[in-house]
Amino acid sequence: MKLKYAIGVDLGGTKIKLGIVTSEGRIVKKDSIPTLANEGVDKSISQIKKGISNLLKGNKNLISGIGIGSPGVVSLKKGTVENPPNLPGWGKVHLGRIISKEFSLPTFVENDANAAAIGELIYGKGKKLNSFIMITLGTGVGGGIIYDKKLFRGDLGGAGEIGHLTIDINGPKCNCGSRGCIEAYVGNNYFIANVKKKLESVKESKIFELIDNNLENLSPKTIHDASLLNDEFSIKMIEEMGQNLGFGLASIVNVLDITNVIIGGGVSGFGKILFDSTKNSIKSRVLTPLKSRVNVYPANLKNNAGVKGASSLVFYS
Amino acid sequence: MKLKYAIGVDLGGTKIKLGIVTSEGRIVKKDSIPTLANEGVDKSISQIKKGISNLLKGNKNLISGIGIGSPGVVSLKKGTVENPPNLPGWGKVHLGRIISKEFSLPTFVENDANAAAIGELIYGKGKKLNSFIMITLGTGVGGGIIYDKKLFRGDLGGAGEIGHLTIDINGPKCNCGSRGCIEAYVGNNYFIANVKKKLESVKESKIFELIDNNLENLSPKTIHDASLLNDEFSIKMIEEMGQNLGFGLASIVNVLDITNVIIGGGVSGFGKILFDSTKNSIKSRVLTPLKSRVNVYPANLKNNAGVKGASSLVFYS
Repeated sequence: MKLKYAIGVDLGGTKIKLGIVTSEGRIVKKDSIPTLANEGVDKSISQIKKGISNLLKGNKNLISGIGIGSPGVVSLKKGTVENPPNLPGWGKVHLGRIISKEFSLPTFVENDANAAAIGELIYGKGKKLNSFIMITLGTGVGGGIIYDKKLFRGDLGGAGEIGHLTIDINGPKCNCGSRGCIEAYVGNNYFIANVKKKLESVKESKIFELIDNNLENLSPKTIHDASLLNDEFSIKMIEEMGQNLGFGLASIVNVLDITNVIIGGGVSGFGKILFDSTKNSIKSRVLTPLKSRVNVYPANLKNNAGVKGASSLVFYS
Repeated sequence: MKLKYAIGVDLGGTKIKLGIVTSEGRIVKKDSIPTLANEGVDKSISQIKKGISNLLKGNKNLISGIGIGSPGVVSLKKGTVENPPNLPGWGKVHLGRIISKEFSLPTFVENDANAAAIGELIYGKGKKLNSFIMITLGTGVGGGIIYDKKLFRGDLGGAGEIGHLTIDINGPKCNCGSRGCIEAYVGNNYFIANVKKKLESVKESKIFELIDNNLENLSPKTIHDASLLNDEFSIKMIEEMGQNLGFGLASIVNVLDITNVIIGGGVSGFGKILFDSTKNSIKSRVLTPLKSRVNVYPANLKNNAGVKGASSLVFYS
């Protein structure tokens, strides 16, 4: 079979990742460009166009189409994106039409986390699973549900917003307007803010050395690095993240009777500490008949899951 | 088309409801018998047999099969019931095989709330809906998810346990072993216990007259009756129930992008106060693009949804 090529666009709150991907899921060229979300919707769209144009410079492969993974509720049929929580001011945007017109290529838009789940299903850990819940940790916390080898999209394609499962109705305020959503605990900004606050009353942590005593330097990476040095506080923080994640996932495991969970996104690099605590937390909360079936896996595609998943939309349609 | 007949068995924590139901969903004969759950699994099974035998006495219609709606995780293929939360000591029971052997009739077992959802899909409010979340309020709080006119069962048929969505990880202890599940707020026993406790510090409520000043007489019905007399406290209690229900449902609406909710079970008789507060609570919590699509309907089949749903399993297989 002749290799085909597609462009995958992973539209994030802070940057747009792009790649030319083969029909076997290999990235042959990649790039990234800032989203400039604060400069408004038109600016971000022109950034997407610019990113694709850059990618196509010097390209000699025949491109079958463009796949875009976008935050927010996406209509697959219309290619529209509605009110993505981390892209303020977007309202309803006909992203598919705009990009398709610009490049004269078939363009498919899907929720970014759904796209990541499809990528994992085709090329990654999900290849061997019949059903799984994919959760992608980042600035936002997205999700995608694969049931019986197919993406569960719900009525208008908005399914999978696992980041907006509430674990405590009186919990911290979330970007989406609600309270106590998983995202308000484990989304990058919320997590870092929480660790920063707790560090104020912690005297001994290896983090301080790693950040040169400047809390502005605190990042998921420094917390991870400290945990690898057996820093008790950092390990506790990562465990707490897994625990909160597990509390929310337990609800959805109970409701869907899907017991395989795949965690992707940058923070999933926290590794064994995060996966173990997430798994234990889910098991401590789900109904008895489900407990023994609970599994938590790291995503295979790591940071490229978004780009690869987006590209797979082209080969899938 | 010649009318067919099936037996529907709705196995509850306190009583077993049974009926002979036509393929058009009309009950031609019905009965009920106590579950005697405290006397153990064998006793409850013999109660089911006794109930069916009673129902068949004098029956002249040709029965196509038996459908059983049971609490807990049910395997449709094997006809097994596992650890139903309100039937202590059950473990794993081959209910389908036992009943089929006893009556020499094909027997189909399904989670009781899933069966209620199927009944609603075939005969009730769900006839006109493509997808909906069914929640059944009773001693336990069950659920069933209909997506694209089909029951969503999950990996082993356990999907739909909406009663065990957590709304507050530090909330009240639930029968299932977890904390802050919807059921621990709106399940009959939890709800009554909560109202009873609050009544201790309430001086003026029309409830006192309705229960002859004896808190032992407190029931969902007396609370409903008081609300119809404009009793402020009772109205507040029902609103609070709807609010808690809505908090949990909002999580699942976000995750599934299914925005139609049907509420059935005894307590759904609380009527407009309950439905309005549930709807408002869901809308206050779901992601912006979903808000305008949220609808909450009362079940059409009322208390017979369980028996009718169970019977429809026979016509469906």
